[in-house]
Amino acid sequence: MAGGIKELTVDLGERSYPILIGPGLLARVGSLFAERGFAVKSPILLITDASVEDLYAGTVEQSLRDKGYTVARAVVPSGETSKSLTVFDDMITACLEAGLDRRSTVIALGGGVVGDLAGFVAATYMRGVRFVQIPTTILAHDSSVGGKVAVNHRLAKNIIGAFYQPEFVMYDLDTLLTLPIREVKAGLSEVVKHGLIWNADFVAWCDDNVDKLLALDPEALGYALYEGCKVKAIVVSRDERENDLRAILNLGHTIGHALEAVAGYGELLHGEAIAIGMVGSARLAGKFGYDPSIEAVTEALFRKIGSPVRIPGHLDVDQIMAAMQHDKKFMEGQMVFVVPTAIGAVEIRHDVPTAWVREIVEGLREGN
Amino acid sequence: MAGGIKELTVDLGERSYPILIGPGLLARVGSLFAERGFAVKSPILLITDASVEDLYAGTVEQSLRDKGYTVARAVVPSGETSKSLTVFDDMITACLEAGLDRRSTVIALGGGVVGDLAGFVAATYMRGVRFVQIPTTILAHDSSVGGKVAVNHRLAKNIIGAFYQPEFVMYDLDTLLTLPIREVKAGLSEVVKHGLIWNADFVAWCDDNVDKLLALDPEALGYALYEGCKVKAIVVSRDERENDLRAILNLGHTIGHALEAVAGYGELLHGEAIAIGMVGSARLAGKFGYDPSIEAVTEALFRKIGSPVRIPGHLDVDQIMAAMQHDKKFMEGQMVFVVPTAIGAVEIRHDVPTAWVREIVEGLREGN
Repeated sequence: MAGGIKELTVDLGERSYPILIGPGLLARVGSLFAERGFAVKSPILLITDASVEDLYAGTVEQSLRDKGYTVARAVVPSGETSKSLTVFDDMITACLEAGLDRRSTVIALGGGVVGDLAGFVAATYMRGVRFVQIPTTILAHDSSVGGKVAVNHRLAKNIIGAFYQPEFVMYDLDTLLTLPIREVKAGLSEVVKHGLIWNADFVAWCDDNVDKLLALDPEALGYALYEGCKVKAIVVSRDERENDLRAILNLGHTIGHALEAVAGYGELLHGEAIAIGMVGSARLAGKFGYDPSIEAVTEALFRKIGSPVRIPGHLDVDQIMAAMQHDKKFMEGQMVFVVPTAIGAVEIRHDVPTAWVREIVEGLREGN
Repeated sequence: MAGGIKELTVDLGERSYPILIGPGLLARVGSLFAERGFAVKSPILLITDASVEDLYAGTVEQSLRDKGYTVARAVVPSGETSKSLTVFDDMITACLEAGLDRRSTVIALGGGVVGDLAGFVAATYMRGVRFVQIPTTILAHDSSVGGKVAVNHRLAKNIIGAFYQPEFVMYDLDTLLTLPIREVKAGLSEVVKHGLIWNADFVAWCDDNVDKLLALDPEALGYALYEGCKVKAIVVSRDERENDLRAILNLGHTIGHALEAVAGYGELLHGEAIAIGMVGSARLAGKFGYDPSIEAVTEALFRKIGSPVRIPGHLDVDQIMAAMQHDKKFMEGQMVFVVPTAIGAVEIRHDVPTAWVREIVEGLREGN
């Protein structure tokens, strides 16, 4: 495509789909729908959140209407609390009220929360309708690619969900310019994660370009998102349903999810929680005898970005440990951890002693 | 398999699975799990309802424990009201509390309600765990085969769901002997449906053997369930995700689902609602100029079984018509009906005038 737009493919046979990254894409949604043969007669539901609605929903809807599509809008509160069965139920009501049929499309316009929620709506409404991801945060470069959709349960995050691939992912870089700096930093954690698991050169590039990334320099940001999405697309193409390889994408997530659950969704941003989790995983690498500089490099990079690297002191260690037992990665009675073996490489370990994890969690708490 | 056990295969490539039909199967669940390599370390959740629990849950659990499996039990109220997001949420809690992991299995022990609910739990808990169907009603010979799982929304039945195939379906004929006669009759409606859409000889056989079927004669019942499941398995094998052919299984369901929704789930049994719906579809066949004897044969057979063939007089026609517009089969602004063209053959019509449907609904109301 023209106009500085990069394109990647998630290769999944007949369910393959493109990721488009570039400026000015929101106004082209209608054309993309028409080019790809989306049914004009079947209504579309645009799901977005209160923060994104005013900024971008109008542009997307106008672009669709210009091509003859009917589109309704459903707005959820901003934040992780919208990934609940209650809000999910409201979205199904919205689908019914908008008259969505089996050939309809659900569009997610927003961050990871909106993408995960809207994706689960698309996966389950009438047993599955078309789904399009329009991420508007840096963090969502991760969640919008790969088809993992889910809502939370009060006892565990992302525990109710599906593998459900979108028709395409459309990343308009212009939408990132309005992000609060805290979300920029949190989003960069997932970008860096893709480097840490797969690509040491990209980690070095991130380290050299932190200033540009924090300043939302379009060229640097476009490159970083492209590289991050590329790692994600490669991994997902090889193991869509997380039978083995895909689990490496969970670097930092065992501890990170537990922190989010115990803090109550919302206090820690997802990117912040997994940044702390990645520091924890790097310490685990040291325990297993890998190069101690892994921890130093990981922590220094997150400090440079301005991500938290310590667990808030008021969170209870027992609660954090208990929350990990409810994690999906807990299998056949054992904790599963992604452990770095070097910068840019990881392994999946099923033999992590609980005592080590507790020691690391205690050691990472602020004040220790 | 030995011991009067019939076996059928639902042919879906690597997702193919067997349907076992015969006496004495409940006590063999543990052996089947072991033979098929189900992980012993991963806990199992048995979902059943209040009517079935006392009769059969103990046998199934003992059989599993004898082979070293850990099994927890979750009991839902009997009836369609358990197919709600609220009860679904409770089942996810039960999965978490029982410590189910990604290699765990959810077993549905009960009728269609339990199967649909438990199947949606299996499809979505941790984005999908193993699923086994142990139907205990005649009606469930339909819902337990083919992988359609779902819960209801207050505005529409089965609107939240997935296509999710079980590992196997196990039909212990002994469990049918305790069925209330009203459920036997309602269940036979779906058996007859499979004849009406695909196999005229089987319709004639049903007509000749109504007395034996109502008396739960084991040989007649085993044959009828085998033939009914066979039609279902053939259709699902050819079109798993209902792109075209599979829709023929919805004979009687457009009107039937609307009747259930308007009556409030529970007043009419599903089999009763679709029996009335099939009579309605047969009238539609007459409107399209097909042999008027289709209606006479259909109605006479359902009368012989003792199924209702008229819409309860207190149900409102406008509400029934409105409910049909929310049906999943309503596509791109048009109602979709399965219309018989002969006994044992149907076609899918997108050109049914709303006025005809209204006339038929009005004509079928008791008192008209």
